[in-house]
Amino acid sequence: MAHAQADTPLNIMPLPAKVERADGSLKIDANFRIAFAGYREPRLEHAGLRLERQIQRQTGLVILHTNKSVGPATLEVATDHESKAVQEPGEDESYSLDVSSSGAKLHAANPLGTLHGLQTFLQLIAIEPDGFSVPALHIEDRPRFPWRGLMIDSGRHFIPLDVIKHNLDGMEAVKMNVFHWHLSENQGFRAESRKFPKLHEQGSDGQFYTQEEIRDVVEFARDRGIRVVPEFDMPGHSTAWFVGYPELASGTGPYAIEHLWGVFDPAMDPTDEKTYKFLNEFIGEMARLFPDQFFHIGGDEVNGKEWGANSKIQAFMKAHHIKNNAELQAYFSGRVQDLVNKHKKTPVGWDEVLVPGVPKTIVIQSWRGVDSLAAAAKLGYRGILSNGYYLDLGWSAARHYAMDPLGGPAATLTPEQKQLILGGESCIWSEYVNAENIDSRIWPRNAAIAERLWSPEGTTDVASMYARMDTETTRLEWLGLTHGSFQRTMLQRFAGSWSPAEFDALRTLAQALEHEKDYAREASAGTPPTNLTPLNRLVDAVYPESDVSRRFSLLVDQFAASSCKDPAVAAEIRAQLAEWATIDDRLQALAQRSHLVKETAPASGALSHSAKIALDALDAIGKGAPLSDDQRKAQTSSLNALEQQAHKSQLTMPELPAFQKLIEAASAGGSCATQK
Amino acid sequence: MAHAQADTPLNIMPLPAKVERADGSLKIDANFRIAFAGYREPRLEHAGLRLERQIQRQTGLVILHTNKSVGPATLEVATDHESKAVQEPGEDESYSLDVSSSGAKLHAANPLGTLHGLQTFLQLIAIEPDGFSVPALHIEDRPRFPWRGLMIDSGRHFIPLDVIKHNLDGMEAVKMNVFHWHLSENQGFRAESRKFPKLHEQGSDGQFYTQEEIRDVVEFARDRGIRVVPEFDMPGHSTAWFVGYPELASGTGPYAIEHLWGVFDPAMDPTDEKTYKFLNEFIGEMARLFPDQFFHIGGDEVNGKEWGANSKIQAFMKAHHIKNNAELQAYFSGRVQDLVNKHKKTPVGWDEVLVPGVPKTIVIQSWRGVDSLAAAAKLGYRGILSNGYYLDLGWSAARHYAMDPLGGPAATLTPEQKQLILGGESCIWSEYVNAENIDSRIWPRNAAIAERLWSPEGTTDVASMYARMDTETTRLEWLGLTHGSFQRTMLQRFAGSWSPAEFDALRTLAQALEHEKDYAREASAGTPPTNLTPLNRLVDAVYPESDVSRRFSLLVDQFAASSCKDPAVAAEIRAQLAEWATIDDRLQALAQRSHLVKETAPASGALSHSAKIALDALDAIGKGAPLSDDQRKAQTSSLNALEQQAHKSQLTMPELPAFQKLIEAASAGGSCATQK
Repeated sequence: MAHAQADTPLNIMPLPAKVERADGSLKIDANFRIAFAGYREPRLEHAGLRLERQIQRQTGLVILHTNKSVGPATLEVATDHESKAVQEPGEDESYSLDVSSSGAKLHAANPLGTLHGLQTFLQLIAIEPDGFSVPALHIEDRPRFPWRGLMIDSGRHFIPLDVIKHNLDGMEAVKMNVFHWHLSENQGFRAESRKFPKLHEQGSDGQFYTQEEIRDVVEFARDRGIRVVPEFDMPGHSTAWFVGYPELASGTGPYAIEHLWGVFDPAMDPTDEKTYKFLNEFIGEMARLFPDQFFHIGGDEVNGKEWGANSKIQAFMKAHHIKNNAELQAYFSGRVQDLVNKHKKTPVGWDEVLVPGVPKTIVIQSWRGVDSLAAAAKLGYRGILSNGYYLDLGWSAARHYAMDPLGGPAATLTPEQKQLILGGESCIWSEYVNAENIDSRIWPRNAAIAERLWSPEGTTDVASMYARMDTETTRLEWLGLTHGSFQRTMLQRFAGSWSPAEFDALRTLAQALEHEKDYAREASAGTPPTNLTPLNRLVDAVYPESDVSRRFSLLVDQFAASSCKDPAVAAEIRAQLAEWATIDDRLQALAQRSHLVKETAPASGALSHSAKIALDALDAIGKGAPLSDDQRKAQTSSLNALEQQAHKSQLTMPELPAFQKLIEAASAGGSCATQK
Repeated sequence: MAHAQADTPLNIMPLPAKVERADGSLKIDANFRIAFAGYREPRLEHAGLRLERQIQRQTGLVILHTNKSVGPATLEVATDHESKAVQEPGEDESYSLDVSSSGAKLHAANPLGTLHGLQTFLQLIAIEPDGFSVPALHIEDRPRFPWRGLMIDSGRHFIPLDVIKHNLDGMEAVKMNVFHWHLSENQGFRAESRKFPKLHEQGSDGQFYTQEEIRDVVEFARDRGIRVVPEFDMPGHSTAWFVGYPELASGTGPYAIEHLWGVFDPAMDPTDEKTYKFLNEFIGEMARLFPDQFFHIGGDEVNGKEWGANSKIQAFMKAHHIKNNAELQAYFSGRVQDLVNKHKKTPVGWDEVLVPGVPKTIVIQSWRGVDSLAAAAKLGYRGILSNGYYLDLGWSAARHYAMDPLGGPAATLTPEQKQLILGGESCIWSEYVNAENIDSRIWPRNAAIAERLWSPEGTTDVASMYARMDTETTRLEWLGLTHGSFQRTMLQRFAGSWSPAEFDALRTLAQALEHEKDYAREASAGTPPTNLTPLNRLVDAVYPESDVSRRFSLLVDQFAASSCKDPAVAAEIRAQLAEWATIDDRLQALAQRSHLVKETAPASGALSHSAKIALDALDAIGKGAPLSDDQRKAQTSSLNALEQQAHKSQLTMPELPAFQKLIEAASAGGSCATQK
């Protein structure tokens, strides 16, 4: 085993702080054995078992845990000492890994670093011409930010326990260390409360996590070096609390679980001591259930209508010289923070909790922007960035990757102020996300965010990121995540029964499209959707970022770079366009049989028509017959109209810019046309 | 909702005994509600919850279990009375189902029939141009045979609990009612014994089911109308017992877990009373753990070598006038049957247990053939057929479907004798089957066997069977079975990292091939495989029956039937052949990077070369230039050589007969060539 591998790229994600390659490689076969030295604890044993299982999945090798070979283990792990019983941000997470053809050695100060190092080792196992192996190298690695999180919104759509666990496995794989669990919303209160059982009994449609399940998740996460920060959003986003406990609310009730999306009127009554008595007991109960030092109190998006309509509240404001709703919320927020502190926890809140005078202990989670994060740091507040990391908005991995917690205005902070920016959290809000498609809305793009938060500041090569993400996405599937596989299941539902050609057409359509970005779906939805609206349409089955489109666009760039002369690339482009151009026809018969396929007609028509326009442009280039200016304008305008047509199905065609490039290249005065 | 559906085929599998179609259909939407009347029990409530969940999976609709609509339920279920506490073969499993546009009514004598009826209802839900619906109809249904089983061999490869459960879900879907659990083998003893803990502790490499897990499976199965019959194979196939308890064996030991495949020497000592004392206690323990009335004692494939080499055993035989090993086994078998009877169970054994004088209570499971089953019935023994239902042999669904427990010599039995043939069991022996690919080795072909055992004797339309199986296979995936999806995961392991075109080529290759049939893999394996040999090669990743090849063969038949004149069909054939012809080239680069792809070279070469030969034949037909006799012979001989080449990878090319048809058609004197 002595391949000249030192120049092949490593599929590690996130990229380590420092890698030195060497010659040779370590063979991985059925004799693989891991041995632990130094500090030991059950968490490390579990990690060893998971590593063995994962190697088996990655390679198909049969590795008996009872392997008792003589001689040194394949992977020797040395951990110096324990980490804190309750994991904290800022603990040492570093590790070093040395691989030679005779063995691998992983060293870390504490189990957190060990866990990260094991994931790196797993990612290094590659298939080779003569077996599986790990390249010889030396790695020294540590995270750039101590807080690298994923927030899952279990409130709007309930996310089952097994899905949560698969995602924790995914987080471990990419070295994220905070699971922020958004547990209460207008649409559902998802945690069992024994003190106030009507919270989950009446506020959840029967869909909640028991305390036993929550303890199980916390333990599962801790095993993977992940903290669990619970969020109970207050005083707004709280309709579900009031179904069982209307006395907490500022309105007159009665309240029912909200099924629509948006910002709603119900809000807690900040002026009634009953509220704080309740919250004191409730926060106390949850503070015991969730061991983490941090406790998220939400605090976002209160519209104040219930406060305005309540004369008692208005009188209170007058009596206490509270001038407006923002001040009233600040008052509430301060009281709740006191309760959180009383129960020995550190509060976290969304941007809105940052008001003059709020104690410095609070951590600000910025959803509004990196500006507010930097502003908070200047005032001495710790912060984490989520703006730019909202996975539900459907951005490309590259766009998320470009967001840096220390970018923009934060770049000018002093070193001390920069220290206050703890990291970031990706967020998946679940209006249009359920158990079936949530994995696809998180992965693999979340790996790019994980890399941003772990790897050194200069790690910005987008092509390298995509290449490594393409490999990582498969590994993530071996953990049980369904971000790749869910689509086939959903499309089979669409099709009912089908010919292979019909199914191919449907899949080709789905893989060429993306769902509308940002909040456009909300705007274009027609009948207001609710959390009972089926997520069974094409918009729910497409991948947020189309690989097919990304590769096609690269192909068109490559073609243009060849002055439109490379015939092999032209043929590839033509084949892809020809496939898209026929989709609409190929789906006609299926659309007659299935309402879910019928509904895709605007999108399939738009894609096929656009592809024909691009084919015409390619033909014009091939013939050396440039499009006139009028033709160019007409084609461009057609593409724009077709994009609007796709929006009718709340879909978007990410290949349109590449189509437009072909039109430009084919036009009189265009770079390729003029060279002919 | 009043489509003229009465002429569209119903995707029910197995086909019911009697179906009468009517006009109209019942809409299935988010208001769906099921209501139970008459006899009620928790099992029915569970079935109702499963039905709701499954409808959600099939349709994507959000159906709240808490739905409290006014008016009648969508599906009203009436069950007359309870079934037996411990399910027995021969209980009433019939049901009737009436669907009109206003609602559905399911009626059954007991919960067994109700469970079957619910599965039929689920299968009837179809996607339509304006929503989901169930066609109006009247069904009266009952099984042809009372014993419809699937045997899973957990001995040779351990099959994890969740995989077992998914398969029980699959069995419920196709109305199978016996899970035969093969729990001990030379390679592993898989059930926890508290009386004799060294059985699982020393005989399983740590891979066994705890008694708690077994009770869970039994309950899970009962919830689905499925009996669990345990098998502990004796006196052979028992090496794993002897690792902890060598005193049971006829040899001198010591014994180690066997890892190779085959028939081995170790066998219990039938002449030592210690053996029966042990088995009495062991069978007693297992008889309490498994409530079913039947208890399988194996009894197959004893080679007698340990008996022959043991002078004490030889002396015993002489003293008791036991003339040969068959008689000695009969003596053992009789003693064990007495023990089974003593613990109030009915014994079941493989063919070999049927020897003169064996009590009539025993049930004979025939692996040798339908002849021995008929012979047993003539002697008054009850029997179940497994010959012809060995799923691990890789037969087509059509070939299994053609096997009838009352076919062949059994057709001439008297009605009373026919009553003794209780049904059949498909079997999956696990030499080349593990947790990763077992679903694909069982499903969807097992649905064809399930139909054979449930549906009326005349149900023999193979095209209809395949059409319905194509739909059923998707539904089975919604239960969590991975028979379709496992392949992509395995091929991703092969590829490591890849371009989409490379992966397409690999998948196209895999989907065109099948693993060798019957026991050919054993014969061609080279180095003897063991249960530690990785099942990570192309032969492990292909589907046992290639859909692509089946469709291609139908296409060639269609082409021939058009006197080779249909240009559209010719174009389809050409496109498929062209794709296959290029695979070998398209995999070259990947084969340089991955040993698992490199290993597929003989098969990919064989497929590409064969496809080119078939393309030549198609060209000859197109040009009206018939192949000469010499050309025909040369091409045929090339195809034969290429098939041998594919066997080097233990693979087979199921499209070869269709290629051969093209050659024949293209040949001078061939039907199509002469017409030109």
